[in-house]
Amino acid sequence: MSGAGRSVAIPGNSGADALARTLIANDVTVCFTNPGTSEMHFVGALDRVRGLRCILGLFEGVVTGAADGYARIADKPAVTLLHLAPGLANGAANLHNARKAHSPIVNIVGEHATYHRELESPLAGDVAGVARPFSHWIHMPNAGDDIARAGAMAIAEARRRPGRIATLILPADLSWSEGGPVAMSPPVPLQSRPDQHAIRLAAAALRCGRRSMLMLGGRATRGEVLTLAGRIAAKTDCRLLTESNNPVLQRGAGRTPLQRLPSTPVEAAQSTLADVDDLVLAGAKPPVAFFAYPGRPSFLTPEGCRSLVVASPEDDVEHALRALAEELDADGCEPIAASYDPPDIPRGAFSYDGIGAVIGALLPENAIVVDESVTTGRRFPVHTANAAPHDWLNSMGGSIGFALPNALGAAVAAPDRKVIALEGDGSGMYTLQALWSMAREGSDVTILVFANRTYEILIGEFQRMGSGDIGPRARDMLEISRPTIDWLALAKGHGVEAGEANDLEELAVQFRRGLACKGPYLIQVNL
Amino acid sequence: MSGAGRSVAIPGNSGADALARTLIANDVTVCFTNPGTSEMHFVGALDRVRGLRCILGLFEGVVTGAADGYARIADKPAVTLLHLAPGLANGAANLHNARKAHSPIVNIVGEHATYHRELESPLAGDVAGVARPFSHWIHMPNAGDDIARAGAMAIAEARRRPGRIATLILPADLSWSEGGPVAMSPPVPLQSRPDQHAIRLAAAALRCGRRSMLMLGGRATRGEVLTLAGRIAAKTDCRLLTESNNPVLQRGAGRTPLQRLPSTPVEAAQSTLADVDDLVLAGAKPPVAFFAYPGRPSFLTPEGCRSLVVASPEDDVEHALRALAEELDADGCEPIAASYDPPDIPRGAFSYDGIGAVIGALLPENAIVVDESVTTGRRFPVHTANAAPHDWLNSMGGSIGFALPNALGAAVAAPDRKVIALEGDGSGMYTLQALWSMAREGSDVTILVFANRTYEILIGEFQRMGSGDIGPRARDMLEISRPTIDWLALAKGHGVEAGEANDLEELAVQFRRGLACKGPYLIQVNL
Repeated sequence: MSGAGRSVAIPGNSGADALARTLIANDVTVCFTNPGTSEMHFVGALDRVRGLRCILGLFEGVVTGAADGYARIADKPAVTLLHLAPGLANGAANLHNARKAHSPIVNIVGEHATYHRELESPLAGDVAGVARPFSHWIHMPNAGDDIARAGAMAIAEARRRPGRIATLILPADLSWSEGGPVAMSPPVPLQSRPDQHAIRLAAAALRCGRRSMLMLGGRATRGEVLTLAGRIAAKTDCRLLTESNNPVLQRGAGRTPLQRLPSTPVEAAQSTLADVDDLVLAGAKPPVAFFAYPGRPSFLTPEGCRSLVVASPEDDVEHALRALAEELDADGCEPIAASYDPPDIPRGAFSYDGIGAVIGALLPENAIVVDESVTTGRRFPVHTANAAPHDWLNSMGGSIGFALPNALGAAVAAPDRKVIALEGDGSGMYTLQALWSMAREGSDVTILVFANRTYEILIGEFQRMGSGDIGPRARDMLEISRPTIDWLALAKGHGVEAGEANDLEELAVQFRRGLACKGPYLIQVNL
Repeated sequence: MSGAGRSVAIPGNSGADALARTLIANDVTVCFTNPGTSEMHFVGALDRVRGLRCILGLFEGVVTGAADGYARIADKPAVTLLHLAPGLANGAANLHNARKAHSPIVNIVGEHATYHRELESPLAGDVAGVARPFSHWIHMPNAGDDIARAGAMAIAEARRRPGRIATLILPADLSWSEGGPVAMSPPVPLQSRPDQHAIRLAAAALRCGRRSMLMLGGRATRGEVLTLAGRIAAKTDCRLLTESNNPVLQRGAGRTPLQRLPSTPVEAAQSTLADVDDLVLAGAKPPVAFFAYPGRPSFLTPEGCRSLVVASPEDDVEHALRALAEELDADGCEPIAASYDPPDIPRGAFSYDGIGAVIGALLPENAIVVDESVTTGRRFPVHTANAAPHDWLNSMGGSIGFALPNALGAAVAAPDRKVIALEGDGSGMYTLQALWSMAREGSDVTILVFANRTYEILIGEFQRMGSGDIGPRARDMLEISRPTIDWLALAKGHGVEAGEANDLEELAVQFRRGLACKGPYLIQVNL
């Protein structure tokens, strides 16, 4: 119990202050937080250490989801500040999504004082145990003057390509005791690069044209790397595919178009891959089904299809594509690119195609689309393929409650770009508190909530799983129409302006209105 | 991949059906759920197997919190049905609270099919790893005909006194393959009982009267056990204390009154225990501070105070108190008991005392009060001490977002009793989706939301932690007034009727209105 006497540093000299300064010195300048008692010294440091933008979430799933969205767009980590084991647990589902997206995040999780940890106090819990399934790296420093160095290490770990979740556990007494000097992150190690033999094999396969497919994932779906793929396709006539979901998929006019592998049903994915002899994987995982279904395979490639890996998701995919383009002599080719040909604004009753066309017609240039539209959105990729250029963000972990927090984080990372959140009414309810943070930060997000009053995807899944007929009691677990969720009221409750649309014309009016205002606007799309 | 061919049982004969029948055969009749694809066979079984009431939550923290509240009032486990690692993680914070409350809960967590688990699919994750920090027991069966037996084991584990969290991980292919016969839970082992020597020592200490204290926890704060404590106090003049928070504290007219140990500040707890020579612990943990604070102790008993344990939280406290009463020859004594003397309804502006008096004056007989009022509620125990008899439920784990889900679960367990949720506006936002389930189930819950627009408790904690002055940037993380959270709109959004109160008269009018209606009613108390 001697620790009870651990002296309190002068405010400004504490471990928490040293950590805050270290974050800024290493260009980690945004903190998403829902703090508690054990984080009060860090919160106090915010007033002394300038340069850290701190954003409050009312629920930890908002905090971690926002850090995911921020990392995808800013291409650097934000820090989350969370409270003990349960606070971290509340943020875990969106950390799962972030981990699968290889988004770099530094979690700072406050912990009881070192001498208090072993006592049976209410909030005592296994912080490292909660962190383990969702973190690549976990560390707890053991002295106040070790905090800055530990923080710098956490940043380096988060930054290791392709991006990692680093969790720093911070006992309160270390935060309040004397801190040390600012620490600088060590350099990030290089990613693995493919050997020339793999490149030559892949190049040979791609030269066969339409029966070969180049499947891109990770960082290959944006920027220069995507353009390289466009050059390769132009040269070889190979097909270009990407995973069902991507951290950031750059699309629309001027970008090299990628076909997305359907995520359900399994048959659609199989048929996409049916006549492929050679599948060259560049940053993408081998395609597997989202779920297992009775009598259906888990692996999606046809028998006899050869898989050639030029870059695993952990490898340097940019280097791999450069090497591949060089081997194919494709560097000078004009990359294939989508034309600008947005759809006309359709009229009449809602259809999935019609909604997609409204979005495609009005999508502003350089928009960030955060997509958790589930069933409603299946046709959106078609209708936005020739829209203005934009970034498309999907959940990589399949854990629901992704889009609203990610949209918040993306808006923080890119205040000059319009963010559009496409959200199912079921999915949106998991982390609806993100609306409040959007209102608070004036986040420039237009939110479309597709109110079909059902876990529509599960109705289909129920049947695909062969669970028998859907009776009234099962259906009651899959429909959310009783009572009606009133998203206009929910938006108002969180301080966000909202409107509704009952047909495609109204949707166009509402969508234009959302796009015209600078700040959050929610549209309840009454399907 | 051979598993892909695992045959699908005829609906009615599946592992999921066998599990559902086993739950019912073992008197587990309520299921709180937020299901996904891997749980579809269990959902399908709901239509074939009658006797399981299934309640949908829109977020998993609602599901687990409701199971906690249900277990406290029904004194038996409910089952939760959750979806994979992230679904379980979303429910983990309220499992933390339930674990600390020794509430029995059976979690059924759907998992990918056995042959699909190892693949890098989006939702692949470490279910057991997520369960570990919050479960006493974790098991994954390895065949369809093993599911029923595993379910019966899980129920027995949950029921082990004083109550445990049992997590059953259920791969989808076992759910859909042939199940076995219904299994019955093995008998629950007896709890440890104190030896006579400990009883004699404790009795000797209590005979010293006012300088001794009998501190009750766990099951000692209700029913016959509580009355036994009242007899002992009548006989010996010892003081009666209980923990700061209790799973179910029975209070009000006719009940033996217990003083609650203040949870903050540390000084108040220390002063409660200041002149105690002997502290006899019956089901209570040794009193420790909620948090460590610079220069303050973690243990709260004064130097020289002797602690005597007649029953640890895991032991048979009823047996211990019977033995103690017998040793003290207190069996025949009239137990000390609170009189019926509710406060008058006060008028005028809000004060913590005034709000407490309104509640104390109007509290209906046999009400269940679920209290997460944090700062606003500090004076409520005083003003409700002589109200009509009622049960008082507190969070045992300190994880916020406890009250609304627990109130839902309590209302399911006791449909004929009025449930009153006392909720902070900050705390309520973590699991506000519970309102929708209340509306859906017609739960008889009156909710008071104390809208002080601040994490008020953290303002105090900031200062107690010695974090320096609160500057504007720190304050911005502790106040939630920007934008205003409109609870009337949030209630409407979830299908719950609501009103607001701006002074004590309006509060009395609104509270009466809530009590008069059969169903959920929310009152925004504008502090």
